[in-house]
Amino acid sequence: MEMTAPADAARSLRSAHARRSLRRRKKSAPVQQPLGLRERKKARLRQQIIETAVRLFRKHGYENTRIDDIVQILEISQPTFFRYFPSKDAVLRDVGKRGFACIVEHLKSELSSEADTAARLRRLYRALAREVEADRRLWEAVVLSGAMDPVRSPEMRGPEGVAIGLLREILAQGQRRGEITRVFPVLHLSEFMEGLYQTVVRQWAVDLTGPHKLGERVDSAVEFFLRGVQP
Amino acid sequence: MEMTAPADAARSLRSAHARRSLRRRKKSAPVQQPLGLRERKKARLRQQIIETAVRLFRKHGYENTRIDDIVQILEISQPTFFRYFPSKDAVLRDVGKRGFACIVEHLKSELSSEADTAARLRRLYRALAREVEADRRLWEAVVLSGAMDPVRSPEMRGPEGVAIGLLREILAQGQRRGEITRVFPVLHLSEFMEGLYQTVVRQWAVDLTGPHKLGERVDSAVEFFLRGVQP
Repeated sequence: MEMTAPADAARSLRSAHARRSLRRRKKSAPVQQPLGLRERKKARLRQQIIETAVRLFRKHGYENTRIDDIVQILEISQPTFFRYFPSKDAVLRDVGKRGFACIVEHLKSELSSEADTAARLRRLYRALAREVEADRRLWEAVVLSGAMDPVRSPEMRGPEGVAIGLLREILAQGQRRGEITRVFPVLHLSEFMEGLYQTVVRQWAVDLTGPHKLGERVDSAVEFFLRGVQP
Repeated sequence: MEMTAPADAARSLRSAHARRSLRRRKKSAPVQQPLGLRERKKARLRQQIIETAVRLFRKHGYENTRIDDIVQILEISQPTFFRYFPSKDAVLRDVGKRGFACIVEHLKSELSSEADTAARLRRLYRALAREVEADRRLWEAVVLSGAMDPVRSPEMRGPEGVAIGLLREILAQGQRRGEITRVFPVLHLSEFMEGLYQTVVRQWAVDLTGPHKLGERVDSAVEFFLRGVQP
């Protein structure tokens, strides 16, 4: 599974980072102390690198953005960049991790709702599609670099595992309620749903089959899935 | 769509190359003449590079095979290798192109059969899965490198387009015969079927969800698709 929402991910970069810093601080020091100046400066530069890179990916596309462009804007050296990220891809993987965090929020929100399985899946994927659609250029970069693809980026397997676990819980609840078939195990069903969604998004991102709305294609994929899982 | 069968592809490397050489010869000289010694030598070395690389990918895995290993076995220099292929990936893309040629043969064979849509799809994907399963190590390399992925390797869009065109024809015939629903356009359905198959193969290749038979998972994906397209 490789669900994502880079628009939202990018939007929440700052707050996600703030939360993470907080967690890190909690971990290293039981008594909360403010970050040292040096650590704060490092965190700030890291954040600036991500934001600058994302801005350039959006403006010129991923392929046309060089690390050189990023360091020039920030007035830092290439070695400095490489102390924070081993490659251009690595910046996107950071965005990807936050993308997964955002998907997890959506999934949890559906799990806590009273809606039936069909309503949950329709609302979930519509929300993700909307966020992806709002940020096509960045999403294209994420697809091309495989930044959220657990097959190509093994470090994504953890965050992806959390998301797929929640999707399985939605499907398992659907089976228990008799809303979806028990012919297929939940393990297969979650793979099918994700496969359908990912295929549509990947094709859309690189526009292999002509211009079309992502929302409609995702709706169509969800409706197809719901036909397949009818009890 | 990114259907493939590297086992078969590898097996047919020699004959595919022979056919291609023949076509090239036909094109360049209306009166058929044997290839020049120089051209024959070049074609032979190209073929040897592919075969050596594939053998090493199978034996040690793609990531653990270096261009250096390939050139040492063949007793050629690195620059010589790079005159034939710009990268390690490029060797696999050559394998991938032949993989598509092999898939196209399977699709044509189904189209010329008298079977109904369900039987055609079951037989088609079972055959592809069998060939992929017989050559997991090479297939893993194809997945990880994106060698047959039209999103990541734009030169695959042509061969992939031919294959997807034939899959659409199978689905369109199914709609005309009333064997599958008309609720979704054929364009969407071919994307769904391919998305399901690809997801299963990708997951299997990198074994993210534990050891399991590919054949069973592909059968399950095809049965799910057939439920979804019921009229």
